[in-house]
Amino acid sequence: MTRAFNFCAGPAVLPEEVLAWARNDLLDWQGRGLSVMEMSHRSDEFMGIAHQAEQDLRQLLAIPANYRVLFMQGGASSQFATVPLNLLSEGGHADYVDTGIWSQKGIAEGRRFGDVAEVASARDNGYTAVPDPDQWVLRPGADYLHITPNETIGGLAYPAIPDLGDCPLVADLSSAILSEPLDVSRFGLIYAGAQKNIGPAGLTLVIIREDLIKPMSDCTPAMMSYAIADKNGSMYNTPPTYAWYLAGLVFQWLKQHGGLQAMATLNQRKAGKLYGAIDNSDFYNNPIRPDCRSLMNVPFTLADESLNKAFLAGAEERRLLNLNGHRSVGGMRASIYNAMPEAGVDALIDYMADFEKERA
Amino acid sequence: MTRAFNFCAGPAVLPEEVLAWARNDLLDWQGRGLSVMEMSHRSDEFMGIAHQAEQDLRQLLAIPANYRVLFMQGGASSQFATVPLNLLSEGGHADYVDTGIWSQKGIAEGRRFGDVAEVASARDNGYTAVPDPDQWVLRPGADYLHITPNETIGGLAYPAIPDLGDCPLVADLSSAILSEPLDVSRFGLIYAGAQKNIGPAGLTLVIIREDLIKPMSDCTPAMMSYAIADKNGSMYNTPPTYAWYLAGLVFQWLKQHGGLQAMATLNQRKAGKLYGAIDNSDFYNNPIRPDCRSLMNVPFTLADESLNKAFLAGAEERRLLNLNGHRSVGGMRASIYNAMPEAGVDALIDYMADFEKERA
Repeated sequence: MTRAFNFCAGPAVLPEEVLAWARNDLLDWQGRGLSVMEMSHRSDEFMGIAHQAEQDLRQLLAIPANYRVLFMQGGASSQFATVPLNLLSEGGHADYVDTGIWSQKGIAEGRRFGDVAEVASARDNGYTAVPDPDQWVLRPGADYLHITPNETIGGLAYPAIPDLGDCPLVADLSSAILSEPLDVSRFGLIYAGAQKNIGPAGLTLVIIREDLIKPMSDCTPAMMSYAIADKNGSMYNTPPTYAWYLAGLVFQWLKQHGGLQAMATLNQRKAGKLYGAIDNSDFYNNPIRPDCRSLMNVPFTLADESLNKAFLAGAEERRLLNLNGHRSVGGMRASIYNAMPEAGVDALIDYMADFEKERA
Repeated sequence: MTRAFNFCAGPAVLPEEVLAWARNDLLDWQGRGLSVMEMSHRSDEFMGIAHQAEQDLRQLLAIPANYRVLFMQGGASSQFATVPLNLLSEGGHADYVDTGIWSQKGIAEGRRFGDVAEVASARDNGYTAVPDPDQWVLRPGADYLHITPNETIGGLAYPAIPDLGDCPLVADLSSAILSEPLDVSRFGLIYAGAQKNIGPAGLTLVIIREDLIKPMSDCTPAMMSYAIADKNGSMYNTPPTYAWYLAGLVFQWLKQHGGLQAMATLNQRKAGKLYGAIDNSDFYNNPIRPDCRSLMNVPFTLADESLNKAFLAGAEERRLLNLNGHRSVGGMRASIYNAMPEAGVDALIDYMADFEKERA
């Protein structure tokens, strides 16, 4: 077997060790005679797997005791509705910051369920920098403020978590969670689709400060209520058990490899090399202001866009896969999550240099 | 490796061949250098897998061309809200039939979103028979009538699909789909959580007559809109790709093993043997009227309930797993889906006879 280097933005590369562990137990988990995906979610075996996953995640992120961890379904796109349905008070309002396509999607869906306003936008700088929090025009008394700390498509990332005083900060951390240590206590609610740094698609992680969990409102589907999910240990109905198990294996892998501080060091080195290669070339370009560049998603363009297809074809020949940019923006994008080995980034940089030499 | 016989109601046993295929390709699907769970859902490879799964399902169920197939998330419990949010017209109403715990859950959630009435119930017969459709007090002009053709907990099944004239029939077929041929044209909408006869938990199948797909209403989360799911080929956001792939492998397995007619023959033989063993004993009992007995979920009680624990412990020794009844009703339950080999049913029957001989 030859594993390729997979730069897909999500579903994304998983650690090879995790996949090997899963393969080993696929038909017979730890000698019990059945696959994890065949287990009752209420069995002692699966409850043990689920509990261990939560404990490992709590340890990795140092999640404070007054935060609940929920394992849900539906991805960030479901959370775009779930957040306002749960957190908007009667007659209340919420503020959102626009830093790219994913925050815009969150705003558009949020507006369908209440008074949601865009209070700052990176539109004016062409989405090349996060707007300065000192310039945000916040509305007093907001139920929450929503940010997207890492924009998966634009490759734009917050240089720091803004300080909002008492207003609960809600963050879509789908593409940055677990890539570096995080001060969870700065947030009211964090959500993340699993398919970048956590596990396979179909699982959605929610970390919520317990005082923000409110009784279900009339118009909220039970499956979208944080209170219902919390009360039932994320098992109001059958959860996506196999994805939960694989997420747990990823958490174990992270612990074995030094936790989030080690990941941050590695991710900074990987991203630093790649941005360095881009910046040192007149052929490749990344437009993002350096302090706002994503460590996870590195979009870049070629000076001659007519060479895009040749670039992608040559990359595939070297087993460097899925480097095409999002269909909405074009260009190239290298997603270099935790599970992307440094050797993959090195191979990409080598290829970029060779391609430039040949074609520029 | 020794695979046990797993009688869990769901997540449930999967075909061993399917698990072996999945294991074989877990780190490297067909030599492409990555796992299916690492593929972009929009890649040619995954689009091919997704398309093939739908085509195979359409062939297995002979789904008419005017029906759409959607691959969604959230299980039947999400559909309990999704169905009324999509199908109830402004000021309209829907009728529901109560045949057990799952239909009751659907009714309770449906009532939160509109005028939903229970128009028939098996309550009067202690949930031992499906109420005679001739006695249902239907309300004229209902947007739909909702039934649960197989109650997973009670083991109560419809002997035939009721004839409702023009009123669209909506069915929760989570625990019976693919167990026998089905005349899809008799239904307006069918939904099913995957974790019984389709694949792993986290995937939800919806088969809907295309004229019932209406534009999204104001209070419907986009992720719960059939119109949005349909317009985007079930990829409005990242779908649960690995579960979708595994479902596709199950569909291939079904085709290789003779399709749904062969399954029906096998399922009738398996269930026939097991109910026969129960009926021929004074020690075991199943209360359901014979024509309403589920072929998939066979609940039974022991004459002496104090022996329940001993029965389950002895079963585990013979590697007959998860025979305990649902926590809400107690007793025993053997779920014998397509993937339960006939040898498993035979082993259970042998054990039941031995246990009765020893302990009765």
